[in-house]
Amino acid sequence: MEIRTDYADGNYTIHVDYGILEASISEYIAAYSSVHFLVDQNVYALYKDSLLSFVQHPIILEGGEASKSFDAFKHITETLLERGIKRNHLIVVIGGGAAGDAGGFAAATVLRGVDYIQVPTTLLAHDSSIGGKTAINSGHGKNLIGAFHRPKAVIYDLSFLETLPHHELLSGFGEVFKHALLKDEETVRTLMDATRTKISLDMMKPFIISGIETKMHYVTTDEKESGIRKFLNLGHTLGHAIEYKYRMPHGMAVMLGLYFMMYASNEKAARNIFDLDSFRQYFELHGYPLEHLKAIDEVEMMTLMGKDKKNQSSDATGFVLMNDFGQCYFTEIDSNQLKKYISQLKESL
Amino acid sequence: MEIRTDYADGNYTIHVDYGILEASISEYIAAYSSVHFLVDQNVYALYKDSLLSFVQHPIILEGGEASKSFDAFKHITETLLERGIKRNHLIVVIGGGAAGDAGGFAAATVLRGVDYIQVPTTLLAHDSSIGGKTAINSGHGKNLIGAFHRPKAVIYDLSFLETLPHHELLSGFGEVFKHALLKDEETVRTLMDATRTKISLDMMKPFIISGIETKMHYVTTDEKESGIRKFLNLGHTLGHAIEYKYRMPHGMAVMLGLYFMMYASNEKAARNIFDLDSFRQYFELHGYPLEHLKAIDEVEMMTLMGKDKKNQSSDATGFVLMNDFGQCYFTEIDSNQLKKYISQLKESL
Repeated sequence: MEIRTDYADGNYTIHVDYGILEASISEYIAAYSSVHFLVDQNVYALYKDSLLSFVQHPIILEGGEASKSFDAFKHITETLLERGIKRNHLIVVIGGGAAGDAGGFAAATVLRGVDYIQVPTTLLAHDSSIGGKTAINSGHGKNLIGAFHRPKAVIYDLSFLETLPHHELLSGFGEVFKHALLKDEETVRTLMDATRTKISLDMMKPFIISGIETKMHYVTTDEKESGIRKFLNLGHTLGHAIEYKYRMPHGMAVMLGLYFMMYASNEKAARNIFDLDSFRQYFELHGYPLEHLKAIDEVEMMTLMGKDKKNQSSDATGFVLMNDFGQCYFTEIDSNQLKKYISQLKESL
Repeated sequence: MEIRTDYADGNYTIHVDYGILEASISEYIAAYSSVHFLVDQNVYALYKDSLLSFVQHPIILEGGEASKSFDAFKHITETLLERGIKRNHLIVVIGGGAAGDAGGFAAATVLRGVDYIQVPTTLLAHDSSIGGKTAINSGHGKNLIGAFHRPKAVIYDLSFLETLPHHELLSGFGEVFKHALLKDEETVRTLMDATRTKISLDMMKPFIISGIETKMHYVTTDEKESGIRKFLNLGHTLGHAIEYKYRMPHGMAVMLGLYFMMYASNEKAARNIFDLDSFRQYFELHGYPLEHLKAIDEVEMMTLMGKDKKNQSSDATGFVLMNDFGQCYFTEIDSNQLKKYISQLKESL
């Protein structure tokens, strides 16, 4: 399955299928005079003798968020330069969302930008690898330093997902669920029916492809987040704060953020757009820790959300809410109101 | 004097005159909800009670190249985030070329890009502040990590130049001279006549403006250095290597690089495009240390030049040479030939 982006120029292809990595990479490499592989250390340990046996002399990235520190950024770029990287070389970034963010930011900035290919290896990264956003973390929050730098291709080999631990599948499913909400009610219903008893990889491929297409729609229309791209932030405003505070996996925190979004959307609209009880049962059945919402501190969360880079103002917090499935709008919620929403949500749990 | 860029979109104005800073900045600030000043420490010490008395709570950048380390990058971006920077804020970068590079790179990457204004305070920065290139330094060479990020305006207040030490004037004059070479023979003759006995600020304004216009022509035609923008690299390939090795001021090293360019251009064309003796006398009269060229080591220079990010290949070194005043071409010089040119030049001095 191939999905082609639809920008005015600089388009690229997203390849999604099982067992496509080596053959796809070979085709792209042909156009460059050299290639540098940046590979997440955990992914390399798991696949160096199988899916990644063709990878020569990889630069190993620390696993997960550790690859997104300033020090790691320095290490990656200095190693690329040490190896004599030139502008007509290619970088291939292999790993989860963190590796993609860190490797992408290195590709965006070394020599002021070198071509790169994203090879996402987790379910979560089906989201983060699309759209050209790259970043490292600040002491003040995640992804606060970065660049927009489109890859030349995304090669999403689903074979990597077969060994994914269940909690990572759950985390990635948070973004799959978000993309379904962004599309329409029917997609949400179909997805929930397919996962009524169990979230598993078998049934995921069509929802992954649909999710990528949904995301593509938003990022090609609004690459730099001045308008509707912000809607992809659905569930992320509180989600990021929870993720940061509790070191919770991204997609798990997003699912909690989505639950808050549903609550706040209902309140704002003064009607039940979302049947909170049914979503709560569904989330809890699959192990999303909604009980964490009971423990959060309103003021601390608001401080963390105030640092979100999408927030323009300091008195109010910008949120993406919904009027209906597939119908987002952007609104600023003032501090008192927001505090009230969070308190009410805590009591309701 | 105002010069407007001529891109397809995202254009900005370059203001050049005496005493324009505070009034110009005020106009731009009005459109933003907050402003953050990044100011070179030496510039701030000199002007905090005069030209910069209107600047509130500046973030002080270490003077010169020290502001372009990874650590300084971390410090600048973390301080901006600590102060609660948002995407609808403005950054104003005040200082020489190094401050502009470092502050520009911070503006390019914090929150994935915030609007900024360049306020060059040196003669050299009339060059580096134009064109949207930002960067920090690597252990492997200067400016090897960076981004293209156009400013919203360049405000070049020539009043800053009045206190410029003579050696900085000389260094900046290297780029003024390069821009004259890039334009035509008449401009070079007029410039050399005006500086026959002394290089001073009085006569510089028309040449600065002409230099900015020349540079604008190249950068608007080819923003990302895939074609003719490379011609601005005239004199810089060897210049950067000398600057890196001898910690020589940028424009001084460029002038030495330009002398080598003239030598190599004559050799390549097998005719005297440039009257080397007259240029040599002129450069030496004004204190450009051509004697350093006698001391350089061919192999070491070639290794350093091989790391230049504009070099695509490792067997040969890319150079910009000239067929005539104002007539550049790009060529690859293989290692043996290059070694011979450098040796011959050393002997000729």
